[in-house]
Amino acid sequence: MSALEYTPYVADCPSRQLLDRIGDRWSVLTIGSLVDGPQRYSAIAARVQGVSQKMLTQTLRALERDGLVTRTVYPEIPPHVEYELTERGRSLRTVLEPLERWATEHMDDVQASRDQYDAR
Amino acid sequence: MSALEYTPYVADCPSRQLLDRIGDRWSVLTIGSLVDGPQRYSAIAARVQGVSQKMLTQTLRALERDGLVTRTVYPEIPPHVEYELTERGRSLRTVLEPLERWATEHMDDVQASRDQYDAR
Repeated sequence: MSALEYTPYVADCPSRQLLDRIGDRWSVLTIGSLVDGPQRYSAIAARVQGVSQKMLTQTLRALERDGLVTRTVYPEIPPHVEYELTERGRSLRTVLEPLERWATEHMDDVQASRDQYDAR
Repeated sequence: MSALEYTPYVADCPSRQLLDRIGDRWSVLTIGSLVDGPQRYSAIAARVQGVSQKMLTQTLRALERDGLVTRTVYPEIPPHVEYELTERGRSLRTVLEPLERWATEHMDDVQASRDQYDAR
């Protein structure tokens, strides 16, 4: 199937589910926490404030499964694990970063619109 | 609060909830269905295949509340309603379109990674 044949506007197209995955808040923030290079689980958890251990573990596993993040186990004592963006993950980050920036830059305007709407 | 003080990495920052809203599949597809100009509800529902009436109504209301879409009632007989992107909605579309495109362009590669992961 070529890329042109996928469209998330069709209900059962797999690209709709992929769009869900990559637009998910925990995916966006987990990927964003890896922009500066490989990180341990604890460093990601500290950066993505408020994420539960269960959710972060699920998110990292899904990102690894989708080929966006690699998980490397260093056989030290005690062993440690690092997560790193793949080339595909970095490519995704280039489209997620503007989305993240849009949310912070337009927050005040959106809040003003909400206040106005709720006052009607 | 200035834009620089918002960050979705902080649990209770409102920009995290906004990021959720704008990354939501139904927001992405509803906004995408309005790129060519104002549309009636029925045309949006036809474009965003499989969306329930309840979900589309909720999504359009949230987009209107956030100042991303306008809802105009034309007092004809029978009256009709059109939805249109605001300038802010068009600005959001410029960051959502690359996300949507990324999902369709990388679908095959992501699926290959999933198959490989599941075969481990």
